[in-house]
Order: sequence, then C-alpha cells, then structure tokens
Amino acid sequence: MASTDKASPRDRLLDAAARLTYRDGVSVGIEALCREAGVSKRSMYQLFDGKDGMLAASLERRIPRYESQFAHPDPERATPRERVLYVFERLEQASADAGYRGCPYLAVLVELKNAEHPASLVARSVKERLAATFRAEAERGGARDPDLLARQLLLVFDGAGARAGAGVERLDDGLATATVTALLDAAGMD
Amino acid sequence: MASTDKASPRDRLLDAAARLTYRDGVSVGIEALCREAGVSKRSMYQLFDGKDGMLAASLERRIPRYESQFAHPDPERATPRERVLYVFERLEQASADAGYRGCPYLAVLVELKNAEHPASLVARSVKERLAATFRAEAERGGARDPDLLARQLLLVFDGAGARAGAGVERLDDGLATATVTALLDAAGMD
Repeated sequence: MASTDKASPRDRLLDAAARLTYRDGVSVGIEALCREAGVSKRSMYQLFDGKDGMLAASLERRIPRYESQFAHPDPERATPRERVLYVFERLEQASADAGYRGCPYLAVLVELKNAEHPASLVARSVKERLAATFRAEAERGGARDPDLLARQLLLVFDGAGARAGAGVERLDDGLATATVTALLDAAGMD
Repeated sequence: MASTDKASPRDRLLDAAARLTYRDGVSVGIEALCREAGVSKRSMYQLFDGKDGMLAASLERRIPRYESQFAHPDPERATPRERVLYVFERLEQASADAGYRGCPYLAVLVELKNAEHPASLVARSVKERLAATFRAEAERGGARDPDLLARQLLLVFDGAGARAGAGVERLDDGLATATVTALLDAAGMD
C-alpha cells in the first residue's frame, strides 16, 4: 500500500491486520496478513507472540482514530444533547461507505465469542469508554437516569452499526438520530 | 448427543452445525462438525455440497424454533403493544442463559461479511420477517410511522442481542423492554 510503504514492519502488520480483519473477519490467515503487509512470517513472529496479540495490538492502535471521529468539532459550544447526536450523525455518515462493516470492536467481540481473548479485552474497553462518555453527557444534560440512557444509547449504537454493517439496514435517512432523539426526549435530556 | 442418537446423519450434521457455529463461529472446521455429528466426511459430502450449504440449511432448520420463542402465547387477547414487548421479554430471558451468544442470524451476517453467502440469505430472510411482524403490530397499534417504529425496534433487538451475547451488557434488569417502551410511547402506539 502506497500509504504504508515507509511504515515499519510492525505498523504495516498492524494496519494489515486491522484492514483485513475488518473486511474478512478474525479468521483471516497469518499468510494473508503477512502478504498484505509485505512482511515475512519469520519477521512477524519476531514482532508478535502470534496472531492473537497482533490482532489486539491492531485494534488498540486504531482507537484514537476511531474515537476522534465521534468527538464533536466544537465541544465547548455544543450542548450535551448535540454532542450525543453528533456521535450518531457520524455513525450514519460512516455507514454510507461501501466498505462499511459496522463497528470493528463489536464485530471482533461477536466473532471471537471469547471474552478473555486479548482482542476482546481491547474491544470491551472501547465499549466501556463510549458508555462512560454517554453517561457523562446524560448527567450534564439532566437526564432522569443517566446510566439507563447511556445503556439505551449503546443498544442503538451497536444495533445500528451491526445492522448497517451487515447490509440489512440503511442509516442514511437518519434512522439512528431519530431513534436517539426519541430516547433523549423520553429521558428528559436537554 | 443423546437427544440426536436416532436422528438421521443429515439432521445430526445440521444440529451440529447450528450448535458449533453458534458457540464457536462460522469458521468452525468441517472435521469438528463431522466429529460432533458422528458422521464421516465422506457421508457429509454425499449429503451437502459443502460447508456453505450445510450452514445455510442448519440456519433454515432452526427458524421455526427461533421464531416460535417470540410468539406471544395468547396472541388473541394480547394487544399489539403487549405482543411487541413479549418479543423483548423473551430476548431478555434468553440472554440470561450462560451459553447465550446473541441472535444466531445476526451473528452469521456479522461473521460472514458476505451478503451473497447462502447462510446470509437465510439470516436476512429471518430479519426481514421480524421487521414485517413489527411493522404489522405497529400498524395495528396505531403508531404514527409504523415503518420507522419497526426499524427502531430492530435496532434495539439486534443491539441488545449483540451486546448481551458479547458479554458487554446484561438485559435481565429489563433494559430492552424499558427502551422499547420509550420508543412505543414516542411513536404513539397503544
């Protein structure tokens, strides 16, 4: 890949793991990953204990980019409600991409079916951080039950991502934001 | 398995495919499936074109059992709202099972990442039928926008199933029904 020619073998492997896993699933083979990264298997095993650790590291590496896409560009001026809705607007935008396959962290959890896997631990931490963000916004916005609202928002977030990623739903008509608006209203959130 | 000793090789294979795929994912090997079913690989290939067809058939075979769990036991006396809420009560109950891994049909869609796969087509048909059921109930219940409400209910259904199945959420305190209640109220559904 032109964009990663100058990256280190480690970073090329992590990018390849993130890209191929997202596209094809966690069962993607070591050979395919090394080929995509342009790194020998021998070098791979010098850099990582194996595929599990590499997968976890690739998910970890993507966190800043993943989370920054949901951060409101003007957080000081936006209300808590606007900041929450922004997350879902971005989700709706992302889902319109031809390569969209849903939230990479939820996908890994669904695919691995193993909460102890190092990649599952990374995915879980991302989900918990988003829950904490929603809860904090719900508190600031005066929601009656901030914890309940945060959990409801995550049901919608993961349901919308999974369904759009699987090609059984489209979000580009504002389905996620409409659903979230109803829940914010019901929770009494400004 | 004691319960399938008298089943035909075909049915034993389909049950094994459903069980192992649900527990371990769609990448489960042919050898493991045949071993679990007590059927030789040779017999398997006489019965099915291969794993793809067997997986699709196993999902198809489970549909009646899957759908019947969500059917209200007294549909005549229940209101549309009660019939919708019953689906989510059953989801909450199912999620408390130690072996719960979410909706098997959504999981297959997330894992295969291929809308043309024969198993994806089966999964998609199940999702579409549930959407049609919700839409019909929403119409009967006088929801303002039955189509929108049905789609919202599916976001919650799949989000709740995926999150509980992945072990990042618990539904046994009524999270799904509380969320659905808010959406039914917002839609003006009796």
